[in-house]
Amino acid sequence: MFLSSSFLLESEIAERLYFEFAEPLPIIDYHNHLSAQQVAENHKFENLTQIWLDGDHYKWRAMRLFGIEERYITGEADDYQKFTAWAKTVPHTLRNPLYHWTHMELRKPFGIDELLSEKTAEAIYQKATTMLQDDDFSTRSLLEKANVEVICTTDDPLDDLISHQKVSKDTLSFEMRPTWRPDNALKVDDPAHFAAYTKQLEKLTSTVINDLDDYLVALEKRHDFFEQSGCKIADCGLSHLNFVPYNATQVEAAFNELIQGKEVNKESQEHLLSFLLLELARMNHKKDWVQQFHLGALRNNNERMFKLLGADAGFDSIGDELQAAGMSQFFNALDRTDQLAKTIVYNLNPAQNEVFATMMGNFNTGGIRGKMQLGASWWFLDQLDGMEKQINTVSNMGLLSCFVGMLTDSRSFLSFSRHEYFRRLLCNMLAKDILQGKIPEDYDLVGSMIQNICYYNAKSHFKF
Amino acid sequence: MFLSSSFLLESEIAERLYFEFAEPLPIIDYHNHLSAQQVAENHKFENLTQIWLDGDHYKWRAMRLFGIEERYITGEADDYQKFTAWAKTVPHTLRNPLYHWTHMELRKPFGIDELLSEKTAEAIYQKATTMLQDDDFSTRSLLEKANVEVICTTDDPLDDLISHQKVSKDTLSFEMRPTWRPDNALKVDDPAHFAAYTKQLEKLTSTVINDLDDYLVALEKRHDFFEQSGCKIADCGLSHLNFVPYNATQVEAAFNELIQGKEVNKESQEHLLSFLLLELARMNHKKDWVQQFHLGALRNNNERMFKLLGADAGFDSIGDELQAAGMSQFFNALDRTDQLAKTIVYNLNPAQNEVFATMMGNFNTGGIRGKMQLGASWWFLDQLDGMEKQINTVSNMGLLSCFVGMLTDSRSFLSFSRHEYFRRLLCNMLAKDILQGKIPEDYDLVGSMIQNICYYNAKSHFKF
Amino acid sequence: MFLSSSFLLESEIAERLYFEFAEPLPIIDYHNHLSAQQVAENHKFENLTQIWLDGDHYKWRAMRLFGIEERYITGEADDYQKFTAWAKTVPHTLRNPLYHWTHMELRKPFGIDELLSEKTAEAIYQKATTMLQDDDFSTRSLLEKANVEVICTTDDPLDDLISHQKVSKDTLSFEMRPTWRPDNALKVDDPAHFAAYTKQLEKLTSTVINDLDDYLVALEKRHDFFEQSGCKIADCGLSHLNFVPYNATQVEAAFNELIQGKEVNKESQEHLLSFLLLELARMNHKKDWVQQFHLGALRNNNERMFKLLGADAGFDSIGDELQAAGMSQFFNALDRTDQLAKTIVYNLNPAQNEVFATMMGNFNTGGIRGKMQLGASWWFLDQLDGMEKQINTVSNMGLLSCFVGMLTDSRSFLSFSRHEYFRRLLCNMLAKDILQGKIPEDYDLVGSMIQNICYYNAKSHFKF
Repeated sequence: MFLSSSFLLESEIAERLYFEFAEPLPIIDYHNHLSAQQVAENHKFENLTQIWLDGDHYKWRAMRLFGIEERYITGEADDYQKFTAWAKTVPHTLRNPLYHWTHMELRKPFGIDELLSEKTAEAIYQKATTMLQDDDFSTRSLLEKANVEVICTTDDPLDDLISHQKVSKDTLSFEMRPTWRPDNALKVDDPAHFAAYTKQLEKLTSTVINDLDDYLVALEKRHDFFEQSGCKIADCGLSHLNFVPYNATQVEAAFNELIQGKEVNKESQEHLLSFLLLELARMNHKKDWVQQFHLGALRNNNERMFKLLGADAGFDSIGDELQAAGMSQFFNALDRTDQLAKTIVYNLNPAQNEVFATMMGNFNTGGIRGKMQLGASWWFLDQLDGMEKQINTVSNMGLLSCFVGMLTDSRSFLSFSRHEYFRRLLCNMLAKDILQGKIPEDYDLVGSMIQNICYYNAKSHFKF
Repeated sequence: MFLSSSFLLESEIAERLYFEFAEPLPIIDYHNHLSAQQVAENHKFENLTQIWLDGDHYKWRAMRLFGIEERYITGEADDYQKFTAWAKTVPHTLRNPLYHWTHMELRKPFGIDELLSEKTAEAIYQKATTMLQDDDFSTRSLLEKANVEVICTTDDPLDDLISHQKVSKDTLSFEMRPTWRPDNALKVDDPAHFAAYTKQLEKLTSTVINDLDDYLVALEKRHDFFEQSGCKIADCGLSHLNFVPYNATQVEAAFNELIQGKEVNKESQEHLLSFLLLELARMNHKKDWVQQFHLGALRNNNERMFKLLGADAGFDSIGDELQAAGMSQFFNALDRTDQLAKTIVYNLNPAQNEVFATMMGNFNTGGIRGKMQLGASWWFLDQLDGMEKQINTVSNMGLLSCFVGMLTDSRSFLSFSRHEYFRRLLCNMLAKDILQGKIPEDYDLVGSMIQNICYYNAKSHFKF
Repeated sequence: MFLSSSFLLESEIAERLYFEFAEPLPIIDYHNHLSAQQVAENHKFENLTQIWLDGDHYKWRAMRLFGIEERYITGEADDYQKFTAWAKTVPHTLRNPLYHWTHMELRKPFGIDELLSEKTAEAIYQKATTMLQDDDFSTRSLLEKANVEVICTTDDPLDDLISHQKVSKDTLSFEMRPTWRPDNALKVDDPAHFAAYTKQLEKLTSTVINDLDDYLVALEKRHDFFEQSGCKIADCGLSHLNFVPYNATQVEAAFNELIQGKEVNKESQEHLLSFLLLELARMNHKKDWVQQFHLGALRNNNERMFKLLGADAGFDSIGDELQAAGMSQFFNALDRTDQLAKTIVYNLNPAQNEVFATMMGNFNTGGIRGKMQLGASWWFLDQLDGMEKQINTVSNMGLLSCFVGMLTDSRSFLSFSRHEYFRRLLCNMLAKDILQGKIPEDYDLVGSMIQNICYYNAKSHFKF
């Protein structure tokens, strides 16, 4: 039955696997976009709209498609009006992952079992909003309730990490670690931004940046600072890892133009970006961090809405750039000198799953378990079909047993049910395999694999 | 059991959903290639070959693959010989959609239950051919029998639409509307054709076409005429929507060459095509039409057979051009000035489903329900797996509830079972979801979604 | 139950189809990489490692991903240590095809039922190694045990085929035929190799090679020799069939440079390669051979490991090159003069399955059953999901009934269970179709299709 305790568990074996092996384990959410400040301040949200709809571009897209006016999505309508617009949309999201997330998130943590619709909107809004006033629903309480052990936020190299430091001093049931995400240091197509960013970096690190070497020195200072603040993971978002064998002189020249705010041509951009990606990846290797790449998005397609709302407002989609050759060259350039860190690549275009998964397999060397892997389903693929496909691809083209498992990638403190969802469907898939005789009915073997994927692999892989 | 009343309905819930909600609804076939003239004339077909095999390049391809000589496919063999060749092929099409279409189309409208094979060929041919002599099997009768409410044919801007006008004057249980398909006005790679087409357009519209502005003026006159003739939908077929930011001077120059029958280079072709696509799309927006794009085919691969048989003879296949960037730029160029009409994009390469579906999501604005959507499975994908994938993609990446549903895209008056097929599998998928607890067992919720997808969405979306 | 006699057969109908129709048939393994010499010498393997792990880069990749050091994979560790490292890895390959192949290959021919793991490693190693000493486990005995009727090895045009001649003189229960694989004659990007290869060809054929015509004459002599030695099939491996309309002068010039060991530019390489592919394909057509193309691999991604271990060591992956346009032009260039031989194309990127399958359909002409077809799942796709996808694509986009079925593509004498695996899942899929009412429960119809796919189609298609 929809959302019952056996939700997604289609057999007794599935239930046994889930409740015995998966469900009890804590959550390591090694990649998300939670606000460190809201954790540091132990923030409480005013109402259900603020914790649930604000910034949630998944919901916004669905509302726009359903025909809701922008006023009720990101516009001047009040919080309750926005909630009502969302509630009206929900029944029409049937079969979309939002229908599942919505009702799972009402259940946990709010204990609300009713289906959301225009009719139930008011009662649900009131009930949840009342609860949110309670200390039990502060950010920290929500993390505790969700049995979270580690969260890794996503942070700019220039971030002061004050919130992280503050939280690390408190005695808590969970750790919060920063993640090094240098995307802003890589915007070679935006000279004004690049120049300004370099200025800020200069100031923050007390390093005069006259050339590319200085730039790397300054960035490495921040890299060191991140490590001192508990960081063990890097991340980077790109449409594709278009690595080219760069020319050193061209790279240097391009950098010198950019820090003066002058544009450089496409080719020079590619060379400089290739150089920077390589050097940053070498830093990650030196510190034995795990590096992540989020590839495949085509962002900001709608200029008019970008001008109104900025980035991450629901106007991004799945790209179809070719991925294999550039990735091969990039990893090879790092491997050549044995400077390739443990790497997770997240792929947004499901048609490319097999290309990615087999590419990773080319660079497993040196006796490191699961060194190179295809990451969990991401963004548009963060749903049942997407997860199943990713799990099947990793199974067929890699080793599922070495997979570091699920993450929320979310801005919301209510998203931890994604882990529950993943665990349920993982257990269901393995149970189906047992029932179909595709794998042995051996609970030690299968159960321990589940435990590893849900918790232990991440713990040891990231050295938490 | 194969083709029983519960065909494709694998559970009682599926049967309930189908028979209660889907089956009773009329058919809106908003895109097909039926002959308007044959409807106007209330044509009767001489025999089963003429209504069923003539022009059906799906069947032709299967016959060629099975090793039938061209003589029995498009050659000089007589109608009965051709039918026998097809009958011989049918048992070997097991698992191909043709096996389903074939037997569904024999059942409806002919009431023939036997499986077609060499053995049964003669009896079936005689029985169906006899029926075809009856007025009850004229084109109009066939449409009525199939519970068709609207058909939209596909028409060239130069078409006089006389058949449409004629039909519109008769009192019928269905409407026939034209669709504006300007592909022939866009053949920038074929100067001889372009020049001749422009001449014809000039004559038909009594407009002197000396430059590109004149060309647009003349086209718009035809656009107006189509609207007056009941047209509400545009369509366009392209390998990919390769929109580039065009240069106005280059566009003008290219046009001037082409109307003199002179070739222009690839780049100029792209610029001119981009310009024309944009301007035609703006006309669609102005009239509040729905515009369709059929993308992804690689046509006329076999030169030798093209010379023999011309286009649409079974020598086309699925292309793998990159689609995302051009589409993004095209829709953005229209959205920038708020001139983007409601749009349906049909994708032929299933590996691109997710790219298309998420691309559409970037341009839903302005409070229009289902403004941008991925269209139904098309051509090679017009089969069970293809439809299920499209439905799943739309569900995961968009809102299934807003989908305008199925169409035949067919040249044949026997193809309406495609709607039945679609409805059956849709109901079966939703029933499976209910049984697996993925959606609530709520017949109001699920049933009304089915009704909308099968009928009401199209009715309101196209304003029929 | 895992690996029971009903393995992969999920219904009684599936069992009936398998045991009645598929299981009894001999095996035609029309493409593999077995050592002809080992068959000629009726080689016996010293131990389980040598017959099972040596050269098996599938297992190597899994071991590397699991974190095994290279020393225990391809390094100086002894055979038993390597086996233990593999045994340790096996339980962690759950859901990977290796888990199935491993246990199927222990069952047949060794009769070992236990699951391989660190614990069972020693006993299994001893038992199998002891058996391998027996004449009953020589290469020829293994082929007989597996009910093999034909094997086709893969051979360079310069190969003397002495082993094939030797075997053909013996009275055996199977035939061994060579396959013409001219990849080494096509290495236009490697001048040193090209020059040396041409020298060898000159010597072997007693033909002075001064220009491209001479080169073709010499190659055709070898082509003739292969035919005299029983060859009926050609093969070729390429990342993609990037055929371009070549310029004859440029082609000639490029060839003259290459035989002097001088590099030619990318464009000239493409022209020359296009020319050579076309001419070799014409030879295949002249002899009425079946030609195969293995497309889609991106090879030797890891430079460091390539220097250590050479090619085919587990550092290849799935490429994402565009495939449609080049393939279309190539087949069209051959079809234009009616010189297109029967062709099987194997696709490595599952996202391209539909593009390939429909492309093949463009060139079925001339009354040849199954002339152009998408080949069986290959390499990374040689697993349950991959096979099911290929079968479904061929069903939907072609005719499954004309499919020539499975092959091992393997270097190992233990791989024949791949045929069993394929037959089981094929029968299971068809049984599912019957149970779901998608095809009639007609055992003559379905059973004969199974028999054709598993055996008779290959027999007649290749004229064995």
